[in-house]
Amino acid sequence: MKLSKLYTKTSKSIPSDESANNARLLIQAGFIHKEMAGVYSYLPLGKIVLDKISEIVRQEMNKIGALEVQMSVLQPRDIWEKTDRWDDKKVDNWFKTKLNNGQDLGIGLTHEEPIVDSLIGFINSYKDLPVYVYQIQNKFRNELRAKSGLLRGREFLMKDLYSFSLNKEDHQQYYDEVLLAYYKIYEKLGIGDDTYRTYADGGIFSSSFSDEFQTLSEVGEDLIYLDKKNKIAINKEIYNPENLKKIGLKESELEPHKAIEVGNTFSLGSKYTDQLGLYYTDNNGQKKSIVMGCYGIGISRLMGVIAEKFSDDLGLIWPINIAPAKIYLISVSQDQKTQAKTQKLYDLLTQKCIDVIYDDRDIRIGEKFADADLLGIPIRAIISSKHGEQEVAVKQRTEKTEKIIKYIDLINLVK
Amino acid sequence: MKLSKLYTKTSKSIPSDESANNARLLIQAGFIHKEMAGVYSYLPLGKIVLDKISEIVRQEMNKIGALEVQMSVLQPRDIWEKTDRWDDKKVDNWFKTKLNNGQDLGIGLTHEEPIVDSLIGFINSYKDLPVYVYQIQNKFRNELRAKSGLLRGREFLMKDLYSFSLNKEDHQQYYDEVLLAYYKIYEKLGIGDDTYRTYADGGIFSSSFSDEFQTLSEVGEDLIYLDKKNKIAINKEIYNPENLKKIGLKESELEPHKAIEVGNTFSLGSKYTDQLGLYYTDNNGQKKSIVMGCYGIGISRLMGVIAEKFSDDLGLIWPINIAPAKIYLISVSQDQKTQAKTQKLYDLLTQKCIDVIYDDRDIRIGEKFADADLLGIPIRAIISSKHGEQEVAVKQRTEKTEKIIKYIDLINLVK
Repeated sequence: MKLSKLYTKTSKSIPSDESANNARLLIQAGFIHKEMAGVYSYLPLGKIVLDKISEIVRQEMNKIGALEVQMSVLQPRDIWEKTDRWDDKKVDNWFKTKLNNGQDLGIGLTHEEPIVDSLIGFINSYKDLPVYVYQIQNKFRNELRAKSGLLRGREFLMKDLYSFSLNKEDHQQYYDEVLLAYYKIYEKLGIGDDTYRTYADGGIFSSSFSDEFQTLSEVGEDLIYLDKKNKIAINKEIYNPENLKKIGLKESELEPHKAIEVGNTFSLGSKYTDQLGLYYTDNNGQKKSIVMGCYGIGISRLMGVIAEKFSDDLGLIWPINIAPAKIYLISVSQDQKTQAKTQKLYDLLTQKCIDVIYDDRDIRIGEKFADADLLGIPIRAIISSKHGEQEVAVKQRTEKTEKIIKYIDLINLVK
Repeated sequence: MKLSKLYTKTSKSIPSDESANNARLLIQAGFIHKEMAGVYSYLPLGKIVLDKISEIVRQEMNKIGALEVQMSVLQPRDIWEKTDRWDDKKVDNWFKTKLNNGQDLGIGLTHEEPIVDSLIGFINSYKDLPVYVYQIQNKFRNELRAKSGLLRGREFLMKDLYSFSLNKEDHQQYYDEVLLAYYKIYEKLGIGDDTYRTYADGGIFSSSFSDEFQTLSEVGEDLIYLDKKNKIAINKEIYNPENLKKIGLKESELEPHKAIEVGNTFSLGSKYTDQLGLYYTDNNGQKKSIVMGCYGIGISRLMGVIAEKFSDDLGLIWPINIAPAKIYLISVSQDQKTQAKTQKLYDLLTQKCIDVIYDDRDIRIGEKFADADLLGIPIRAIISSKHGEQEVAVKQRTEKTEKIIKYIDLINLVK
């Protein structure tokens, strides 16, 4: 992408109506636009990052045999009444609306009910199970407060996976596969080292625990007690001697940390499937309950978490897998020869399918350096007539010093 | 994809609550699930088709220099009041909802206002124009009636492109580029021959016409008068001697056709940009109005149109570019040798990145043939021990007869 074609601009002034550091930085860098508290639009660079995070999550979901669907946002009342989750007194963060004929509708805040309902007719026999489906889709929650930028949105992008298994053993086996997939996702997103599986409340449908993935952060709303050596934590909500014993954690080895929940996994038992009438017939002709799990990852929240964690006074610092471009290319001077050399490298990188931003704007080079830093592009590459034919001056966003390297080494650096 | 891994199933019975042929077929084939009238979810095969249509549209938008964004669904009241499009008396198909604090919100039915608003701060000088942005996103319209399946949804997937130009000449030039991109899109989707540029009402912001792209169909809600020789049409809404003369159409060369609108392009002048306060300064320092255009394509509607047009008594007939798979692979017998040969071809095709459905289910071959037809996969490929080592029996969905061809010819057929 050539920057002369990009309409968004960086801004030196901090947005006055934004208290969250992640949103401030993303607005200053032109990645997002604030529509209202907790509601953001994604501008071209922000959309690229969001898509890259989604694609990493999608690939891991596909690898564990889950099929992608797209459920509707508009929700009819009746299926939610069957599980007693329609009433605002039961679920207090629904957005509701009405059809012109007065019929009530909900604006999807989660999708257990419609997913189960969509399986009716397809699942009859034990041969039809297991089923694993997921979607990456906007969710809507009528939050009272939404002051954390992308960390707590009223509208946000989420991956939600649902599993349907024959019995508890099969469910547990898939549940463990999902946990492994989640570890891989956080690893690829660059937050693997700071993200911990955390025991949490199992919810009203389970006597056991649920699992959260918590990323350490000073702005986190959660408090977790972390056993760093064994890479396992427990949420403060369920922190008590009895639970520590159950899980096998020792109080002496735990330290408290603020953290942000970046994923969760729930065993739901048969509550939803039973209430919505989804059963299977076993090989003896007996009607049996289906064991369900649900597994969430907040895609837009992850973008916020990463913006929050990986930044400094100069701006954002994207992990290379999700950066809007891997390389920020600058020609050191406006003379024709240097510009032609820069264009040539731009063409080479583009040909190799390497995402590159070419700052071809007619502005001072200092401004270009500042923008490369604020946008958080992992590698800054500068073309000058001083260097050799196939040479370029490279500085990583996380380092202080520049190195002269060959084009081929630049390509190897980002591949 | 192996069919044993797909949980959806085809159904022989026609859904009783569905009057539209497109939705009936798509439900029977397991592509979509009806949530309520005008609201559908996309099951795995339907999601693939929707994604393929989106990708064709996306590529053509990128080619004409448009940048992808993602605007929010939730809409604050104030920006829509500036253009007098908030009040239900002015725009009668809004879905509305409220924040917990009582503040009114709209559920996005179009995005002119927020797109213009998001450009404020980025566009100041003539050097900042033109800007072309698009998104592919769910839209919501509170339709009184929604009985046409995917052809008229209350929730539907749409591509909406917006252009911002310095003056009318620049606007017109880009407008014409968009028209050419639209032709290419319909061509790639397999409906190029039946889709016509159609003069239509310019709307309240224009003294000239707008353009629609209309696909001929007996179930279309529009009536157009078509000059087949010159491949141009006029919508009945503006069909009168004066307009015919303006456009240069002759009544004697026009024939009436029912048609479905699959795209539209509007010149909006400066109405929205002026009302929302988006201007630019020209090279003389003068404040100037920006000329805006908007350009829609209904992605999910296109899926409905194509299902409606390309089908027969046996089921769907997808154009090869958007079929959920190009090849439907069947082993003629369950003996180990034939199955191993089929698996080998499956691996070969997958390796070549050719989408293939392998019907590995333990059911009668007649049922597999019926499903291949109902799902509408362009090519049915049958492996039998009767044929040579690298040979396969191939039948196209649109043909009656089977041919024995080499693997390499099968690959060339779909590439």
